[in-house]
Amino acid sequence: MLKIGYLGMGNRGTYVLGNILDCFKDRVEIAAICDVYEDRVQHGIDMVKEKTGKAPVGTTNSDDVMKMDVDAVMIMAAWEAHIPLAIDAMKAGKLVGMEVAGAYSIDDCYRLVHTSEETGIGCMLLENCCYGKTELAVLNMVREGLFGEIVHCDGGYCHDLRTEVAIGPITKHYRNRNYYSRNGENYPTHELGPIAKVLNINRGNRMVSLVSVASKARGLKEYADAHGKVLRNKLDKGETSVSYYGRNYDFNEDVYNEYVKANSREVKQGDIVNTIITCADGSTITLTLDTTLPRAYSRGFTVKGTKGMYMEDNNSVYIDGDADMEKAHFGWQKYWDNGKEFEEKYRHSVWQKYGEAAATSGHDGMDYMVLSAFFEALEKKKPFPIDVYDAAAWMSITCLSEESIAHGGMPVAIPDFTGGKWAMYKKEDHGLEFALD
Amino acid sequence: MLKIGYLGMGNRGTYVLGNILDCFKDRVEIAAICDVYEDRVQHGIDMVKEKTGKAPVGTTNSDDVMKMDVDAVMIMAAWEAHIPLAIDAMKAGKLVGMEVAGAYSIDDCYRLVHTSEETGIGCMLLENCCYGKTELAVLNMVREGLFGEIVHCDGGYCHDLRTEVAIGPITKHYRNRNYYSRNGENYPTHELGPIAKVLNINRGNRMVSLVSVASKARGLKEYADAHGKVLRNKLDKGETSVSYYGRNYDFNEDVYNEYVKANSREVKQGDIVNTIITCADGSTITLTLDTTLPRAYSRGFTVKGTKGMYMEDNNSVYIDGDADMEKAHFGWQKYWDNGKEFEEKYRHSVWQKYGEAAATSGHDGMDYMVLSAFFEALEKKKPFPIDVYDAAAWMSITCLSEESIAHGGMPVAIPDFTGGKWAMYKKEDHGLEFALD
Repeated sequence: MLKIGYLGMGNRGTYVLGNILDCFKDRVEIAAICDVYEDRVQHGIDMVKEKTGKAPVGTTNSDDVMKMDVDAVMIMAAWEAHIPLAIDAMKAGKLVGMEVAGAYSIDDCYRLVHTSEETGIGCMLLENCCYGKTELAVLNMVREGLFGEIVHCDGGYCHDLRTEVAIGPITKHYRNRNYYSRNGENYPTHELGPIAKVLNINRGNRMVSLVSVASKARGLKEYADAHGKVLRNKLDKGETSVSYYGRNYDFNEDVYNEYVKANSREVKQGDIVNTIITCADGSTITLTLDTTLPRAYSRGFTVKGTKGMYMEDNNSVYIDGDADMEKAHFGWQKYWDNGKEFEEKYRHSVWQKYGEAAATSGHDGMDYMVLSAFFEALEKKKPFPIDVYDAAAWMSITCLSEESIAHGGMPVAIPDFTGGKWAMYKKEDHGLEFALD
Repeated sequence: MLKIGYLGMGNRGTYVLGNILDCFKDRVEIAAICDVYEDRVQHGIDMVKEKTGKAPVGTTNSDDVMKMDVDAVMIMAAWEAHIPLAIDAMKAGKLVGMEVAGAYSIDDCYRLVHTSEETGIGCMLLENCCYGKTELAVLNMVREGLFGEIVHCDGGYCHDLRTEVAIGPITKHYRNRNYYSRNGENYPTHELGPIAKVLNINRGNRMVSLVSVASKARGLKEYADAHGKVLRNKLDKGETSVSYYGRNYDFNEDVYNEYVKANSREVKQGDIVNTIITCADGSTITLTLDTTLPRAYSRGFTVKGTKGMYMEDNNSVYIDGDADMEKAHFGWQKYWDNGKEFEEKYRHSVWQKYGEAAATSGHDGMDYMVLSAFFEALEKKKPFPIDVYDAAAWMSITCLSEESIAHGGMPVAIPDFTGGKWAMYKKEDHGLEFALD
């Protein structure tokens, strides 16, 4: 039985905890719950007790967890706390599973890596999208050579988050302060993670430089002003609570004023941030952050090679030389959604084996898969499939993007956090079902 | 009757000439045909004579055309000749219709503009995609505010040209030498033209700077080597001609050797070139050049605003606040291809009026439309809807992209070819059916 210290009981932390309790309680004991807010700690204790009959330790001080006898900590806290908590944990000898975020400085990324190297303790970035059903099927297609030599990949975090960002002062969500204080590719890993696996980043290849450019910021302000009027109306009608994403929040003149104050500042975060990354092998990656304009969700995953391509936004696979495909040259539409058949044919082994179990859990089963990967490595005492070098490299895109944008799109170097080991990489079989290399 | 001197009888020139003779011979007289190759000149003379009964003047020297009494010249020559011929024509007092291409230097772009300003002679870039049925419908949607304030647009020239480029030594096509000598966004205007109209470039807005990054070059070489083997086989079987795009070309050991020699050089042009442009109003544009990997054709047109978005690659329109659309947040696929209905509703007046006539002509009717626009402005003696400032600004992206790529993605300034006039723009109604502002 793995003993886990669980840090962070906001939206994401609550969601993932439920997932663990539903799917992994035979393998995992949640030994401690920590959050800076007491009500959230109590909510976590209640959740665990209800599902297991046993109450975990509860604390608002993460140091308490670091002193406990747990195998690993899971970090679900606000973006700003991820790397500091991971460093504390590794120094305390705890293995780390860290939710995704972008980094605030290159120094943080280096400290993360060096702490892991010095302590010998691993840190896994819990990037669920690396285990997406489609992403893993496309990875299989790439590995089997379906697209030839890969030349370019696109990805995006295209998710209309205007509500979530605007209401941050009500829900205590960290995105609000980030959108009003920073301008950059603030959430790169959902799309970059799967691409990094396709392009063997840190395993024979690496990201060398990037340029990043932000558009003007218009969507959030327009939305926040309109939503402010909705809230004013609620107050005037005497409503004392508001509901978002199935949760109720106390609502009064003070909360309203906090909302207005927070959303009256100048939005710093551009609506669209485009980033182009160049890799050591000459392949390129584009990332698009698109979170404050109305749109449907997409991770914009595209893989282009010398023999064919995949595109998520119309779910198509195009293969060179196939007679039918040739006809598609000026009639692509005929092939939209043919990705379904390819996804079936190239389904990854973990989806074949665990797809049914995963289907009942969150985010199309990706959460189940990434948690399985983390727990498998812990149980087998093997290296994590998404390791501290991946975490540092992927998270560094955020602060490097901020730097490039601040310099008008200037190219900036992406550090080699592996210290040259990427070029010496040799694949090893650790017997992990959830390996990604 | 407009008298036209016609320069350039390669693939595109031949195609457009056929279009003019089929659709506009009551309004337009082709008075002269010019090409550097005599056989092409003769072919042009034959085409005109067959359709009109009257042979035009034929010459291999463009100066002969400049001395003739024609209202305008149309330039269909190799990319390298567009601006030099346009300058010659304006100096000779001939109005200019110029096929699309990218520029080789900023100096060329300035000379084009200043020659027009000094002579008072206009120059229209014949960008057919500005008159695409979809592009004009989307422009109408933008003008009517359907997408709110426009924040970002994407476009691409995504067209598998491997055959066309590789066989250049056989067909005398200019693309071959360009792909082996340059690395940049070599064909920006098909996608940038319609975007520039959406964003009012040179008419209240302008492009200020760009960054451009190229991937490695793999697709063309892989294709050219494989096709070389096909050609070697043909030779070995004693074949004496090869056929491409419906035309026959003489084929022998010398032609084969030229093919091999040309395609044995190092490919300079990266397979994928991504460019990000920042505009004066803070909006951004991405351009993707994708011409040497297997894929289906797309111009990747995307428009994103504060109230909604359009995407070509799944032909979807997404509108904020519409209850059905809200449901699409995590189910975009349901809305794929709903663009058809929007395109119907927002159909542009020229497509309503001339769509049927255009349907019989080339490139989905776009050629008919752009030729109509050119001839209308000539007949009415009015300013061109795509003028010399548009030509210079759009074409400049090519050489600026080369510069940025050569500097590792360094941001480069895009000159203001209007000399400040963009900020003083006031829309005027010239009574042109084919106006774009």
